[in-house]
Amino acid sequence: MSEITKVALDAMGGDNAPVEIVKGAVEAVQKRKDIQILLTGQESIIKSELKKYTYPEEQIRIVNATEVIETAEPPVKAIRGKKDSSIVVAMKLVKNGEADAFVSAGSTGAVLVGGQVLVGRIKGVERPPLAPLFPTLTGVSLLIDCGANVDARPSHLVQFAKMGSIYMESVMGKKNPTVGIVNIGAEEEKGNALVKETFPLLKACKDINFVGSVEAREIPYGKVDVIVCEAFVGNVILKLYEGVGGALIKKVKQGMMSSLRSKIGALLVKPALKATLKDFDASEYGGAPLLGLKGLVVKTHGSSTSTEVCNSIIQCVTFKEQKINEKIKAAIQATQEENKESE
Amino acid sequence: MSEITKVALDAMGGDNAPVEIVKGAVEAVQKRKDIQILLTGQESIIKSELKKYTYPEEQIRIVNATEVIETAEPPVKAIRGKKDSSIVVAMKLVKNGEADAFVSAGSTGAVLVGGQVLVGRIKGVERPPLAPLFPTLTGVSLLIDCGANVDARPSHLVQFAKMGSIYMESVMGKKNPTVGIVNIGAEEEKGNALVKETFPLLKACKDINFVGSVEAREIPYGKVDVIVCEAFVGNVILKLYEGVGGALIKKVKQGMMSSLRSKIGALLVKPALKATLKDFDASEYGGAPLLGLKGLVVKTHGSSTSTEVCNSIIQCVTFKEQKINEKIKAAIQATQEENKESE
Repeated sequence: MSEITKVALDAMGGDNAPVEIVKGAVEAVQKRKDIQILLTGQESIIKSELKKYTYPEEQIRIVNATEVIETAEPPVKAIRGKKDSSIVVAMKLVKNGEADAFVSAGSTGAVLVGGQVLVGRIKGVERPPLAPLFPTLTGVSLLIDCGANVDARPSHLVQFAKMGSIYMESVMGKKNPTVGIVNIGAEEEKGNALVKETFPLLKACKDINFVGSVEAREIPYGKVDVIVCEAFVGNVILKLYEGVGGALIKKVKQGMMSSLRSKIGALLVKPALKATLKDFDASEYGGAPLLGLKGLVVKTHGSSTSTEVCNSIIQCVTFKEQKINEKIKAAIQATQEENKESE
Repeated sequence: MSEITKVALDAMGGDNAPVEIVKGAVEAVQKRKDIQILLTGQESIIKSELKKYTYPEEQIRIVNATEVIETAEPPVKAIRGKKDSSIVVAMKLVKNGEADAFVSAGSTGAVLVGGQVLVGRIKGVERPPLAPLFPTLTGVSLLIDCGANVDARPSHLVQFAKMGSIYMESVMGKKNPTVGIVNIGAEEEKGNALVKETFPLLKACKDINFVGSVEAREIPYGKVDVIVCEAFVGNVILKLYEGVGGALIKKVKQGMMSSLRSKIGALLVKPALKATLKDFDASEYGGAPLLGLKGLVVKTHGSSTSTEVCNSIIQCVTFKEQKINEKIKAAIQATQEENKESE
């Protein structure tokens, strides 16, 4: 049998905590024997949730944490102040090697700050980017960076491109994934100062399949596998994707309810439509890894249900099996040596 | 009768030129007696197009221009090199006061460069922003800036907010329009360096209705009337809006064709759906003004049909009647005086 992957899971984070989180943990251990889950949070609450299910009990352990970090709390203060919160306790399990990975549907800010401060970066990684997957017409793409560290430098974006390529190839199984940089036109001379400076650096990277600029219009069509951008732009893309999708579906529903004829049509069309639109819901791809850390940290969508929590946990197994962090370490080191040689 | 508005119209610009452009001109003069159109472009071609229609001939005049600027040409070079192009000739008509406004479906870059270089900025305006209207669930919002001048400074964004407010109030009839700045969170301390620096400046403006940050997710729901951002971000928002909309509609169609049941439903639902989705098509709102110039310059969508061209022409009348440029001039002067006093 393969090695056990130990996943610390924030039982208290997210809109549907603890119910859906605990349920997701149970689903994961029911599916896979090679997972051990450490549920962090208020023991009595978690215990009474777990009582609802029958599952291989030796695969889930509770690690008591009395405090909870709320979504609205300033992240740095929360991580510093709430030492006994489910997030801080779980991060420390990763740091101490008691867990391989941490999954949370809680405060994105706290997860990002905690990841850097408590778990720590891989040597040479300048910034750990948050890299969600999102659906396109032809599959999924990775958007890197959507994190909290805005105003990135060109060297950060180059590292994002490398880490994103490794993730798409090793975890998502995409051979030689294409990499594009978000830009306002296809030509090399277009862009803001950051993009103009980064473009030739990406072009010079031998270890990625850089294909040039990608315009925002092309993103939903799946033009490239790894979409590199600075976190402010990445955040705008991810959230607008959700926003336009949600608004448009609302509009479609309104349209269908506008006449008797269309109402009858809606009844017939509904099941097929529901299935197709689910494929295109950015929130369905909940598990965004924070790459470049010494352990794996995965942020799932705040509104995650048990299915997404379960998927995020199972994703950690692939991450570990594929030795992503060793690959990232090697890529970063190789770059540093190349840079030294060219100096 | 009210004053005549003279509109220079680029007969050669856009995917559907000259056919749809000339048709749009004819439609405009058929609707309104207070418009005079100066069609710039290759005389023989325009003449043969005009021959198709019956219209008040005294309202349309051809101004010959032998050259055409293609979309792919580098804008600065094109504006400098092609002195006898339909864009340059039209811009000069505005500059010399022979036309009040210029409408083009041609190269965005050339229109932006020509606007600044040939028509010229209103005194005190640091940068002329391109400000398209786009549809939301509750109406339309103005996105300012989507132009070619990236890496803006805080003072530019403050001017954008003021010019955008004037436009929404005077041209779109929205009383005391709300103004928001695109950000990655609702709290004042969030954002990149540009947003953090701009936020207090906008808050201090007495002549606009600033309501704070707007997250990209909220944009499609029409949370604010005037959405202020730097041009790189604005371009990403506008293009992603179109991209996600287009991709999702494709997905909806696929879903409807997936079974016999859904195909029958699709037939019933189609007319109602088509009408609703048209409301939400960003490309339908083709006429984006380039604000802060000495004359009005309007860029319509490259794929504009006669309806959009006609609407853009009529929009120029409101712009002139409402004395938008006088209002912008006054607002910019007032700001400069405030700044002097506070020094």
